Amino acid sequence: MGLAEGFDAWLITVGNEILIGKTVNSNFAWLGRKLTLLGYRVKGGIIVPDILEDISWAFKTALARGARVIISTGGLGPTFDDKTVEGLALALNVELQINERALKMVEEKYSKRGLPLTEARIKMAKLPKGATPLPNPIGTAPGVHIVIMGCDIFLLPGVPREMEAIFEAYVEPILREKGPKVYFAEARVKSYGVPESEIAPLIWKAMKDTGNVYIKSHPQGAELGVPILEFHITASSRSPEEAIKSVEKAREKLIEYLKTKGARIEE
Amino acid sequence: MGLAEGFDAWLITVGNEILIGKTVNSNFAWLGRKLTLLGYRVKGGIIVPDILEDISWAFKTALARGARVIISTGGLGPTFDDKTVEGLALALNVELQINERALKMVEEKYSKRGLPLTEARIKMAKLPKGATPLPNPIGTAPGVHIVIMGCDIFLLPGVPREMEAIFEAYVEPILREKGPKVYFAEARVKSYGVPESEIAPLIWKAMKDTGNVYIKSHPQGAELGVPILEFHITASSRSPEEAIKSVEKAREKLIEYLKTKGARIEE
Repeated sequence: MGLAEGFDAWLITVGNEILIGKTVNSNFAWLGRKLTLLGYRVKGGIIVPDILEDISWAFKTALARGARVIISTGGLGPTFDDKTVEGLALALNVELQINERALKMVEEKYSKRGLPLTEARIKMAKLPKGATPLPNPIGTAPGVHIVIMGCDIFLLPGVPREMEAIFEAYVEPILREKGPKVYFAEARVKSYGVPESEIAPLIWKAMKDTGNVYIKSHPQGAELGVPILEFHITASSRSPEEAIKSVEKAREKLIEYLKTKGARIEE
Repeated sequence: MGLAEGFDAWLITVGNEILIGKTVNSNFAWLGRKLTLLGYRVKGGIIVPDILEDISWAFKTALARGARVIISTGGLGPTFDDKTVEGLALALNVELQINERALKMVEEKYSKRGLPLTEARIKMAKLPKGATPLPNPIGTAPGVHIVIMGCDIFLLPGVPREMEAIFEAYVEPILREKGPKVYFAEARVKSYGVPESEIAPLIWKAMKDTGNVYIKSHPQGAELGVPILEFHITASSRSPEEAIKSVEKAREKLIEYLKTKGARIEE
């Protein structure tokens, strides 16, 4: 409903720091937005610790739930607790082996600084058989891309600027090419003076009136003080014009209904 | 390893806004930190859209993975897409029914403002059979607590200040009472000038030297420019003194090893 059907994406976050609340999962939001704008439907997310079995379980679960795209962040570095590649290999029951292209990428990064290849550094070049390394323009650990059972799996680093750089340079073009050719449009409406529970049945009605659109209400003020509601209207369609038209129609309907309840509208 | 064993907690986030990247999941980090400090081990997180079957699947999955505590955020309000309570009832195969205490909570909130009970408002008082409503000091939708198969399940609203208020007033005391009586200690070390791949084997050694401690490295600078590493050292123990001692010992070992590599330390 409103989000692109048929091209389900799953996000996997690997890292204790997310689970213990040391780090807020901003990568998840960044990727969720990117995938949505590319017309994919982000259907689920799984956060797991730096434990091999848990990482493997996360990939198997996303595959079993029908993911067409899986993107993981975290766990690609040189330390003992960077286990995402090994976890994926375990999930897919494929061998880990030194990938010559990946080894070259890692080697070049270090040799420029006069640093030798050590076991910890070579580790970053061990990929599941059949995988392609994605150059890391900022850090040292390459990203990983592998296609299994029609699902594109991408492993990206946890450091946001490395993750974003690899995504934009290598992942986004692939997803755009393979994507659903669905366009996404959105609009926002803010209303004052009507509690969410008052407008609830009319949100549903505005959605049914329009079709192919999704309206979500986010209460921001006190429901019983001066109720402030922010509405996020989204639509997806095979044509960009259609998506924009749906959002516009839903926005007008919603504003119309809000006004019947005496709301003040901020557009 | 370092995190409390045996008392696994799972976090479930319900809401399209998280999946499409409109909202960063700050609730997840807040709860992860709280649970960790209470001695629980946050073992996994699942993010699902506002779809009944997905919500139900998330609860069943966390239960099947051995959760002793499950906390969900989001999907408790009056609108059509607030489906967390229904999703939990579906997962547990228990009936939804109007809870008299919850109805009283909801009714009181609205009657103070001279507002009647409508279907959308009564919806917030429908709980799974056997559940207890948790008063919401800020908003209108009560939280929900139910114990199933030895697992404490809490449903909290998605609005952060409502979620935090219910957690601190009602959830935290229950978790403290039932908790593992494990204490958690932490320390941070920052180093300059040594790349992560150089120190990787020594991090592992510092952990093995100390026992019951976990060291995670977070690269912050450029691995090949001026490498900056932040280390987060955590330990848990049955006694607070023991936890602090373990962290201190690991910190000293780590600094010792970093210095052998020529690192500059910021403590």
